Amino acid sequence: MSEHRQLSGKIREDHIGETVLLKGWVQKRRDLGGLIFIDLRDRSGLVQVVFNPEDSTDAIETADKVRTEYVVEISGKVVARDEATINPQLATGKVEVLATDITILNKSKTPPFQLHDETDVAEDLRLKYRYMDLRRNPLQETFKLRHKTTQAIRDFLNSEEFLEMETPMLTKSTPEGARDYLVPSRVHEGEFYALPQSPQLFKQLIMMSGFEKYYQIARCFRDEDLRADRQPEFTQVDIETSFMSQEEIQSMTERMMKKVLKETKGVDIQTPFKHMSYDEAMDRYGSDKPDTRFGLELVNLSQIVKDSGFKVFKSAVETGGTVSGINVKGKANDFSRKDIDKLTEFVKIYDAKGLAWLKVEEGELKGPIAKFFSEEEATNLRTALSAEDGDLLLFVADKTSVVHDSLGALRQKLGRELDLIDQTQFNFLWVTDWPLFEYDEELGRYFAAHHPFTMPEREDIEKLETEPQEVRAQAYDLVLNGYELGGGSLRIYEKEVQDQMLKVLGFSEEEAQSQFGFLLEALEFGAPPHGGIALGLDRLVMILADRSNLRDTILFPKTASASDLMTQAPGPVSQEQLTELHLELNEKAKQEQLDKQ
Amino acid sequence: MSEHRQLSGKIREDHIGETVLLKGWVQKRRDLGGLIFIDLRDRSGLVQVVFNPEDSTDAIETADKVRTEYVVEISGKVVARDEATINPQLATGKVEVLATDITILNKSKTPPFQLHDETDVAEDLRLKYRYMDLRRNPLQETFKLRHKTTQAIRDFLNSEEFLEMETPMLTKSTPEGARDYLVPSRVHEGEFYALPQSPQLFKQLIMMSGFEKYYQIARCFRDEDLRADRQPEFTQVDIETSFMSQEEIQSMTERMMKKVLKETKGVDIQTPFKHMSYDEAMDRYGSDKPDTRFGLELVNLSQIVKDSGFKVFKSAVETGGTVSGINVKGKANDFSRKDIDKLTEFVKIYDAKGLAWLKVEEGELKGPIAKFFSEEEATNLRTALSAEDGDLLLFVADKTSVVHDSLGALRQKLGRELDLIDQTQFNFLWVTDWPLFEYDEELGRYFAAHHPFTMPEREDIEKLETEPQEVRAQAYDLVLNGYELGGGSLRIYEKEVQDQMLKVLGFSEEEAQSQFGFLLEALEFGAPPHGGIALGLDRLVMILADRSNLRDTILFPKTASASDLMTQAPGPVSQEQLTELHLELNEKAKQEQLDKQ
Repeated sequence: MSEHRQLSGKIREDHIGETVLLKGWVQKRRDLGGLIFIDLRDRSGLVQVVFNPEDSTDAIETADKVRTEYVVEISGKVVARDEATINPQLATGKVEVLATDITILNKSKTPPFQLHDETDVAEDLRLKYRYMDLRRNPLQETFKLRHKTTQAIRDFLNSEEFLEMETPMLTKSTPEGARDYLVPSRVHEGEFYALPQSPQLFKQLIMMSGFEKYYQIARCFRDEDLRADRQPEFTQVDIETSFMSQEEIQSMTERMMKKVLKETKGVDIQTPFKHMSYDEAMDRYGSDKPDTRFGLELVNLSQIVKDSGFKVFKSAVETGGTVSGINVKGKANDFSRKDIDKLTEFVKIYDAKGLAWLKVEEGELKGPIAKFFSEEEATNLRTALSAEDGDLLLFVADKTSVVHDSLGALRQKLGRELDLIDQTQFNFLWVTDWPLFEYDEELGRYFAAHHPFTMPEREDIEKLETEPQEVRAQAYDLVLNGYELGGGSLRIYEKEVQDQMLKVLGFSEEEAQSQFGFLLEALEFGAPPHGGIALGLDRLVMILADRSNLRDTILFPKTASASDLMTQAPGPVSQEQLTELHLELNEKAKQEQLDKQ
Repeated sequence: MSEHRQLSGKIREDHIGETVLLKGWVQKRRDLGGLIFIDLRDRSGLVQVVFNPEDSTDAIETADKVRTEYVVEISGKVVARDEATINPQLATGKVEVLATDITILNKSKTPPFQLHDETDVAEDLRLKYRYMDLRRNPLQETFKLRHKTTQAIRDFLNSEEFLEMETPMLTKSTPEGARDYLVPSRVHEGEFYALPQSPQLFKQLIMMSGFEKYYQIARCFRDEDLRADRQPEFTQVDIETSFMSQEEIQSMTERMMKKVLKETKGVDIQTPFKHMSYDEAMDRYGSDKPDTRFGLELVNLSQIVKDSGFKVFKSAVETGGTVSGINVKGKANDFSRKDIDKLTEFVKIYDAKGLAWLKVEEGELKGPIAKFFSEEEATNLRTALSAEDGDLLLFVADKTSVVHDSLGALRQKLGRELDLIDQTQFNFLWVTDWPLFEYDEELGRYFAAHHPFTMPEREDIEKLETEPQEVRAQAYDLVLNGYELGGGSLRIYEKEVQDQMLKVLGFSEEEAQSQFGFLLEALEFGAPPHGGIALGLDRLVMILADRSNLRDTILFPKTASASDLMTQAPGPVSQEQLTELHLELNEKAKQEQLDKQ
């Protein structure tokens, strides 16, 4: 056998006549007219290997025994395929390997499912046998793309003199934000570490340490109730800089994304990215992460209908709410009453009380509510919505947040279903001018819209304690095709401002001290102006790989109940382990564990 | 002011005449004859800024207010220094900046300690104010070196077509190995995740997923009692490959280290590295990680002295132990009785019962035990130890493991104290042919010397269950300058062998199934032959940066009691958090927490 291994998927016509040594998995085996054909797969792709009784009498006996997913080593000669058997679908389709020797390196039981590119096998089964599912080509390609993405990011940041630095995973629990994953300490009885929700405080401390340009591709943890697009552990591209302005940080991010898109997809994207204020995004798209690849924009009609005879509209405006509409261009005849009823059911998910509609026929608004509008109002509505014959107009009148949520979701749904979205586009958008706080009516208190370390606009600082709802943040989110790719901000670097901020958030001086004392102290020792950004790597890869599920972009993901179906984590631990950690299960958990035994 | 910021440490004579904008920290401020001098520091280094009343009347007033570690923005003109004031120690020493403008961006209280390159400030204080300590130049340089090291590693592995992949942090607890850090699950009552001690099983599963070449710069966790060179979380360069031999993995590692040494230190190291078997390393150096930068080797004298009249030696050999000696070349007259007594105390730390000694004078052995040896024995001893006049010979006779531990440690101590070590060398060594198992006499069972997934030598497999102590592992450790840099092995890829291995380690079938069931199952679905290596990044950086403490190479390290003195992690958590996790503190921990309040 020749010594040097050749990758299967890289064999081409230049290799014809060469003897090659191949190692890999049996993708498929066929017997045909006394010959045996094996599609041999390795990380580079497939090549067809042929065993015939003349060239390989010993080998054909072994070849007869191999089954799908056996691991084999094959020696043979590269030959040209007959014209008639050339496979243009395959990179190696013009050649095949005439085997002289085969060794079975390992056997395989019949795989739990077939490893086709397209699959409808239940996800639970695929997750249990994740190592089999990962052998499928689309997943192999996704993780090669993920590798390319991270390397493009690193190459860029290295070239701009950022330092990659590692922050701790065993950190301090801070109740602000999502729920922490906790790690009991053995040495310090009754105390706990927390896994980081993000390296936020550490990256700020890195700035206070004088490093000026930091990045990390950082694992983060949030113990939240999972949705399709959440995972208990996820990865973010974490960046922080000193002395840079918002514009400089955005421009750096744009250069980085330009390189990523070029190196992973070969696509040249336009920079600078578009900017839109938070208010505008909500008003025009009903979303703080609008998908700007298509129109179907929301139009705020409150001023036009505020005195109309249609009570629902009038009273919505009077009580401080909003009336907005969207124009489903040219689709009046495609939507029956029944279809519209279904859309009404859909907006109700978002707490909308109803969905009003009009159709435009012969220059007139038609439909059950048309009669409520004066000639002038009707004209203004048509103008505002650029309505023409054949258009379907849909309206929600409600509390402003409900109007945005419901019409924003409806826009997204219709955009998808009416195929309005150009799937080839990568549409980046900065959403800026965020409010610094959100008010939680139920709890009667303010929360930080981003996090408690976000810098307010300079001119709004005086309103921090008096009119917190009016304070804007020096924050910016990066949106790609309707997904929030990440967000950043300038950070507070003056102790007085940080003190005020924590006060508005309801921290007593003691609480502030016990939780963030080290940061507050660090602010007093020459903290530089600083800011940064964090981008969701899993989501970025998901978009680049054109997948719809984050689990496809994470090597060993967890289910919606935060389980690993392959390793069966989490699992029970021994009493000895608990005792060492000074812990006991509560009664219910004890019973739960007993029941399982 | 000019718009574009200039880095302080990069200003040179070419810039003379230019107006520059600088941002950074005040390293030092001096008043001298009506002038004010500021040493301005940023991540690139220092430059001297001068304020004089003529050029900068406003600025000098502000400059008068700044103190050490204030953050300032300075505008000024680069000028040549007078010949007499040129500072050759400083990269910017031929120029200075004549300031026209200064703005204080942030103030600083008086730093808790001075930020000199050399410091004798207590480590606890420096760890509490880590963000101040990190501003010191040696630490800045260490983390730049760490960055360069990781990038050199990545560049190399990328160029060899490895894929960087991320394995989970929330994994399953496996009692084999060190103690796990546990993470209670909120969703699964009474169950726990474990933080990975290494990605060992996942990287093997990546091979079973067909990726063939994986790497990760991976955070690992061990809840062990800390020593100076241990941290609860540490970083390893984790590599796994399919279809590669031991030699191929070693050669790949050597190419990687060659690139690292070249890019971080500008040093060309020789490859291939030397190899030494485990037995030889123990016999000649008393260590499985010998520092081969100097001699002072152990010489096994058992055969020479086994029949001697010196009972201590004779009976050590008779009872299965060993007698070994070292020759402290030419130092006979430098060691008094008292000095030797101190060395005796030293070897007792390692359980040696004593330290015998001889000196060579006029071709004769002298000393209290000389009389016990025959002429022939004395000649043989001198020959074996290459002993000449003026040499000091030191001996330990004991159980073999005690001889190795004590003389190995003594060799290391004398090497250091007698300055025998060439500090400029980077001495790499492969230690190979490890035993697969270690026997624990106290517990009366075998443990895996590396881990339970290490492949035995093919020809030893039949001895697995009958003579486990005889089985050698296909394992290799990489040693650098007496530090274990990392280790690797080929892994078991056949289910039958893995089953046997777990049986020898005392696992019942149920235990094996419940802990490693997923791996055992994966071995049945076409697992390829595979192996890899893991290198300690923190330690590598420590050696490259010529530091003696791992804490210097970790950005935010923990103390020996696993505390972060800056953030005060770990800390107490709320009752609500515990309840959500179905946990209670045990009585003692509760009391401990109450006492603290």
